Amino acid sequence: MTSGISIAEWLVTNGNIAFEIIGTLAFALSGLLEAARKKLDIVGMAMVTFLAAFGGGTLRDILLDRRPFFWVQNQFWIWVVLAMCLLALIFIRSRHLEPTERATAWPDAIGLGIFSAGGTYIALQAGVPAIVAVIMGIITAVFGGVLRDVVVNEIPRAFVDHQPYSILAFAGGWVVVGLHYVGTSSFIAVGLGALVITALRFAAMIFGWRLPTWRV
Amino acid sequence: MTSGISIAEWLVTNGNIAFEIIGTLAFALSGLLEAARKKLDIVGMAMVTFLAAFGGGTLRDILLDRRPFFWVQNQFWIWVVLAMCLLALIFIRSRHLEPTERATAWPDAIGLGIFSAGGTYIALQAGVPAIVAVIMGIITAVFGGVLRDVVVNEIPRAFVDHQPYSILAFAGGWVVVGLHYVGTSSFIAVGLGALVITALRFAAMIFGWRLPTWRV
Amino acid sequence: MTSGISIAEWLVTNGNIAFEIIGTLAFALSGLLEAARKKLDIVGMAMVTFLAAFGGGTLRDILLDRRPFFWVQNQFWIWVVLAMCLLALIFIRSRHLEPTERATAWPDAIGLGIFSAGGTYIALQAGVPAIVAVIMGIITAVFGGVLRDVVVNEIPRAFVDHQPYSILAFAGGWVVVGLHYVGTSSFIAVGLGALVITALRFAAMIFGWRLPTWRV
Repeated sequence: MTSGISIAEWLVTNGNIAFEIIGTLAFALSGLLEAARKKLDIVGMAMVTFLAAFGGGTLRDILLDRRPFFWVQNQFWIWVVLAMCLLALIFIRSRHLEPTERATAWPDAIGLGIFSAGGTYIALQAGVPAIVAVIMGIITAVFGGVLRDVVVNEIPRAFVDHQPYSILAFAGGWVVVGLHYVGTSSFIAVGLGALVITALRFAAMIFGWRLPTWRV
Repeated sequence: MTSGISIAEWLVTNGNIAFEIIGTLAFALSGLLEAARKKLDIVGMAMVTFLAAFGGGTLRDILLDRRPFFWVQNQFWIWVVLAMCLLALIFIRSRHLEPTERATAWPDAIGLGIFSAGGTYIALQAGVPAIVAVIMGIITAVFGGVLRDVVVNEIPRAFVDHQPYSILAFAGGWVVVGLHYVGTSSFIAVGLGALVITALRFAAMIFGWRLPTWRV
Repeated sequence: MTSGISIAEWLVTNGNIAFEIIGTLAFALSGLLEAARKKLDIVGMAMVTFLAAFGGGTLRDILLDRRPFFWVQNQFWIWVVLAMCLLALIFIRSRHLEPTERATAWPDAIGLGIFSAGGTYIALQAGVPAIVAVIMGIITAVFGGVLRDVVVNEIPRAFVDHQPYSILAFAGGWVVVGLHYVGTSSFIAVGLGALVITALRFAAMIFGWRLPTWRV
């Protein structure tokens, strides 16, 4: 009950929620832009945005047998995502904006970082081995985007993008595992892990890093 | 133990099972017609029919952590669906019938109504917030059809059909929520909700209602 | 505590684990060859191999509510699959081997037999009715392959291959159910069931057996 413990506890609880919210909003935005680019109607827009925002975390929670889901416990964020869809529909239509494929990639990179670092940490707390936790982080980050792409009939970016994507989630997951084992708080572990992953993904996009391919 | 209570209880229990059965048969029929239209063999036919009939409810139960599944507890209905497949194969082939895309849409509309109303009600009983219950209803109704369409390599009707579909499940879900909160029995709540949704879907198909699109 | 019982128990436990490992390796190999054929990078290769190896069993365990998953409890096998990917990448590239579609089909047939027989047995042990156990066997065997094919953007072999595939899993599942009911050990039931299914699949491939089609 000392103030040191309560601050640490506050960060453990609320730091994780803050990350979950930022990651959710980033992936929701990527879904929204993708839906706008494909000129989906309001229903398709809401579906793509929901899948992008909540799909990966929900699959992770099913695999870890964690309940309730984030969006069941925090229904406020369902309304936020619905409001984002309505606003986007009105705003993008009135301004005749046309989001490019590139526009989707930036918020996607932020979601990638936060969701893979956060997913790894949540899995570690559930007591699974390190390699399983890292895989759970990849699933959390990649699966929402995969669903978003499948629904608009695109081949998932995570599979055909020849730039590093899932492998950054893999590398970043081990950063989180390492920080967790040296005993840093969840706020530092997830925050630093997310920062590393998102920064590397930004660098990959800006400098055009490529994965080694067949037949070099 | 008065007769009034037992009739109400009978309706709560058996009314829901009756709805589940009618919805299952309607979606099974839509899967069957889709499979016949695509000239799938008996194995493909059985798979598409099973996915259409049991896919949405199974995903809802996984999300709500409800067990056992409808088809695990009521194995009789697995045999019914298998028998439907065999009969359809023999009958459709001998008559050289060719189901049209339109033919799939009618039983699909009935399944849409019953499964979204029933799914919403089941989720309310599991104690989730109203907006989550409505989303569970949409998942129950839409996911089986999505699996059915994906398996036969069509883009899911729910995503590209420019006529109102999921949005009717959304609206109808709120009807169920409203009736539940004013205290009607599950039979009335689900029955009325299903009726509203199916009637609106029929109307949308007959009168060619369209959702507002981009570039008005 | 007699030696008879402990040998039986050893077989029940370790026989099943041996089967799970052989099936996992066979499906992993099929995923690996498919990924090599499509010239995926190391990340895509690892994903396809993981989905093929662990996808079907994971879905079965979610449906049966069994935890922990095979790959969570036996993290050793995650490393084996990762090592297989690395070795394959180095070996196939250096030898300029080009796996044919046919090459994928042989390990796939072994995985089909072991996973559908094993999946059926595990479901029987979980206490579900026979028909549900058979369906769980099909899901275990077919779903990993479906995910493997979907990810590399091929229509799932299980749906379009006009040779008998899922129907062999269906027939073989009943062999396992029959052996289980006459009281054989799990080692015999699963081993014999797997042998029958894989042998029939090999025969179907070699002799070109076909399912009856429409418009005979």
